[in-house]
Amino acid sequence: MITRIDHLGIAVRSLEASIPYYERALGLKCEHREEVASQQVRTAFFHVGEVHLELLEPMSPESPVAKFIEKNGEGVHHVAFATTDIAGQLDQARAAGARLIHEVPFEGAAGKLVAFLHPRSTFGVLTEFCAPKP
Amino acid sequence: MITRIDHLGIAVRSLEASIPYYERALGLKCEHREEVASQQVRTAFFHVGEVHLELLEPMSPESPVAKFIEKNGEGVHHVAFATTDIAGQLDQARAAGARLIHEVPFEGAAGKLVAFLHPRSTFGVLTEFCAPKP
Repeated sequence: MITRIDHLGIAVRSLEASIPYYERALGLKCEHREEVASQQVRTAFFHVGEVHLELLEPMSPESPVAKFIEKNGEGVHHVAFATTDIAGQLDQARAAGARLIHEVPFEGAAGKLVAFLHPRSTFGVLTEFCAPKP
Repeated sequence: MITRIDHLGIAVRSLEASIPYYERALGLKCEHREEVASQQVRTAFFHVGEVHLELLEPMSPESPVAKFIEKNGEGVHHVAFATTDIAGQLDQARAAGARLIHEVPFEGAAGKLVAFLHPRSTFGVLTEFCAPKP
């Protein structure tokens, strides 16, 4: 079952340039930074109520986020839903016609299990499911 | 002060085609539908925790959402932050260098006061502030 939006992934060219905007214009506080080597991104986290904003800066041109920015410019990259049962949620999405990018969840940022649905099968929204590691 | 994400606006070509995806793949329930004539969109609302997803289907080629889809395809159109003081939040954003699309808030869906920041000044995210009407 999906319980809430866990985070929005937002592709930016530069954390140094965009963090001050989130702090000053929106009044949010950057509470954590982390490199995710597997995705070749540097991340910065802000929380807004029960949701996190996760700024994603590519570390190399091979990063999926670099390719996203090249094609679409900066902006919302993915929407992550917290689920109580990631395997069951993937089964439900598959049965409803969604195309899974990952058949098996893997470890993402903050030690969570994550898996993605392809945006061509979700009306344009790159969709992540995430759950705490058991 | 920003208290939470109020909603994500998601541009879709067809509510009829996309609502079943949100219901079946994600297990969410469409709880409200509304036409917003000023924006030339039909909307459908789902809630996920404290956030709403607002699907936006253009009613005419002149709708800003139609133009968004033509340029970017379907996907996340805007992120709306709930604020306790919309005029103060706009002042804060302006002072931090954001470009306001609306200097004066106007009445949006569900009778709220809303105003938008231009995505060129917000690192690619079309940003809405919204607040209950006083």
